[in-house]
Amino acid sequence: MRVIASQVQAQMANASWIRKMFEKGAELKKQFGAENVCDFSLGNPDIPPPPRTREVLMSLADSAAQPLGLGYCPNAGLPAFREALAVFLSAQQHAPVKAAQVVVTCGAAGALTSFFRAVLEPGDEVLCPAPYFVEYGAYCGHFGGVLKPVPALPPDFQPDLASMEAAVTDKTRVIIINSPNNPTGCIYSQATLSRLGALVDRVNVGRGRALFLVSDEPYRFLAYDGAVVPPILPLSPFTLVLGSFSKSLSLAGERVGYIAANPQMPEVDLLMNAVTMTNRTLGFVNAPVLGQRLAMALLNEGVDLSVYDRRRRSMAKVLAEAGIRFAMPQGAFYFFPEAPGGDDQAFVRALLAQNVLAVPGSGFGYPGYFRLSFSVDEAVIARSAAGFKAAVGLLQH
Amino acid sequence: MRVIASQVQAQMANASWIRKMFEKGAELKKQFGAENVCDFSLGNPDIPPPPRTREVLMSLADSAAQPLGLGYCPNAGLPAFREALAVFLSAQQHAPVKAAQVVVTCGAAGALTSFFRAVLEPGDEVLCPAPYFVEYGAYCGHFGGVLKPVPALPPDFQPDLASMEAAVTDKTRVIIINSPNNPTGCIYSQATLSRLGALVDRVNVGRGRALFLVSDEPYRFLAYDGAVVPPILPLSPFTLVLGSFSKSLSLAGERVGYIAANPQMPEVDLLMNAVTMTNRTLGFVNAPVLGQRLAMALLNEGVDLSVYDRRRRSMAKVLAEAGIRFAMPQGAFYFFPEAPGGDDQAFVRALLAQNVLAVPGSGFGYPGYFRLSFSVDEAVIARSAAGFKAAVGLLQH
Repeated sequence: MRVIASQVQAQMANASWIRKMFEKGAELKKQFGAENVCDFSLGNPDIPPPPRTREVLMSLADSAAQPLGLGYCPNAGLPAFREALAVFLSAQQHAPVKAAQVVVTCGAAGALTSFFRAVLEPGDEVLCPAPYFVEYGAYCGHFGGVLKPVPALPPDFQPDLASMEAAVTDKTRVIIINSPNNPTGCIYSQATLSRLGALVDRVNVGRGRALFLVSDEPYRFLAYDGAVVPPILPLSPFTLVLGSFSKSLSLAGERVGYIAANPQMPEVDLLMNAVTMTNRTLGFVNAPVLGQRLAMALLNEGVDLSVYDRRRRSMAKVLAEAGIRFAMPQGAFYFFPEAPGGDDQAFVRALLAQNVLAVPGSGFGYPGYFRLSFSVDEAVIARSAAGFKAAVGLLQH
Repeated sequence: MRVIASQVQAQMANASWIRKMFEKGAELKKQFGAENVCDFSLGNPDIPPPPRTREVLMSLADSAAQPLGLGYCPNAGLPAFREALAVFLSAQQHAPVKAAQVVVTCGAAGALTSFFRAVLEPGDEVLCPAPYFVEYGAYCGHFGGVLKPVPALPPDFQPDLASMEAAVTDKTRVIIINSPNNPTGCIYSQATLSRLGALVDRVNVGRGRALFLVSDEPYRFLAYDGAVVPPILPLSPFTLVLGSFSKSLSLAGERVGYIAANPQMPEVDLLMNAVTMTNRTLGFVNAPVLGQRLAMALLNEGVDLSVYDRRRRSMAKVLAEAGIRFAMPQGAFYFFPEAPGGDDQAFVRALLAQNVLAVPGSGFGYPGYFRLSFSVDEAVIARSAAGFKAAVGLLQH
């Protein structure tokens, strides 16, 4: 007897690589002890939230216990938080964003599904550079959208603008980018982004339906060596920015994010009203109020980034000493090195045999490479050195 | 230039009546002062959360400030909370529910969309008794499902089983019920439910795809005069129960709910794994962790129900004195009286002229009646008496 939908059944059969590694990791940890496994498979921010988190939550406890203290809030978010986000995003994006152009969402994931629901007709295409966060496919697939990845250019993984332009059809509704990038750690350059904005404007001339450029930016706060993540809204009137506080405030479990539209976009109010409605009718209703109040209070604070930078340098040393080739990540907390031997799944299996967990590039639509999250304690990175060397050695003999 | 999807545009044009009344109410409150408007249009629980809420939040502040304190949690919910819910639901539902059969969701709304995504093929039909919570249509419509309401029987609004059986086709995938009911306040009787369970079992004999009976139960805790809300899981192996803590703990803004499946259901593990996946890929990822911890700590507590009962009696008195006919609600916090004159929209307009806000039955797929939420202060109910009388008088002259 069939209990689940065919498309969902197919998605389950293709359970994501990240998930598979998670299960494999759980087995290894059970067998060998967690302290003997080096797990680089998960992007779960493990450094403490900002010090004021405790104090803010204590103060929220008083108001939460009042009538309506934790009651419904407007679907688009607490008005004061939307105002604060508008100020925050105006500065970050070099564009005069107003509260009406910001919708508070259940994380970046909720922002994406609410947006896709609001704009996609069945059969619409969504372009993204590969490698890419594999859930993008499911996010647009719920509403009949089709993800079309376009391989980025190694070794530094800037998007391939010529191939992206060639991939645009009448059905292309959205181009989605993610910078600093998961899984490559690449920050898209101002030159690349300017060309992308020009492409979007060119396509939109005379078009009946808008082509949107959407930037998914949960790692904007995390750029190394003084690198600048260029703002998105100045690139084109058809731009939107979304993000979350999962990584910047280490509160991934609270599910608080946002989506903001370019104030110059045609019909911007209609679009944001639609996103507010789909945010409600998809069942989010509103982002959780405690999380909203917490993120609002901590909006201009952040976790200690130097911790991530030290880990990045340690990881780079371990990889270099093992003879593994990689581009140094400019942002986020991932390395995306070449798989020694060229077969990413084989190399990840070789790492597994050393109790080292990584995710093959195949899981991000980009075989031949593998992803390491360095959102782990430095001791784990140091401990992994022998494992990487042994795995490389195994593949060379 | 078209910026939003055609189906979404249509939904926006049909903005819900509740939303329209909300906007109308905001205008009136601005014009006359909030204290001069009697707003019965919203189901926002306004009585304080349980007294321990403050203390629980204070204690959560300590753990939240630790590394990973607010990090990702498993997509199906905190394991300890699922275990606690399994015990809680086993007692409530008279069935041995295990943690594996419970998924924690972002409220009841998130439970419904995750479930519909997991089971619906495009073109599938969802039956529900009318009047009904109008968002059900959008919840299943996102995934190609079609809501087919079947009018319930006045004056007490038990579902019309004969008409429901006649409405079942090969494409019927789900029957959804809501008891205690929004908007009628009706509690479905054991006799009605037993017949419904038998109908579901009959349809499922020899069927290739399961027909599910889903009970949406956010108001289970709120039954008056010692009324019993019969358990759902004993009715058929094809049953699921979902609910939230929005009303029982007055934390509607936190978005914490659950869905639980009958342990006897064929392929129950596959179904709950699918719901766990759609909960992730729809962008919920996990219900907010602070809300989960709060609901877990308060699972066996509740708001003061006597407040709602007193309001119910006051409201009944006001309506009776105005000569308005109604069935006394057995549960939830709504009245669904007959519209004097028979035209619900006309009567709601007449109430509006008295600064009294209600929602026409048309907004719930059931014209000729109107909904009053008595989740308001008793003073508001008392103050509304003259308005109801005047509105009735207007329509009679």
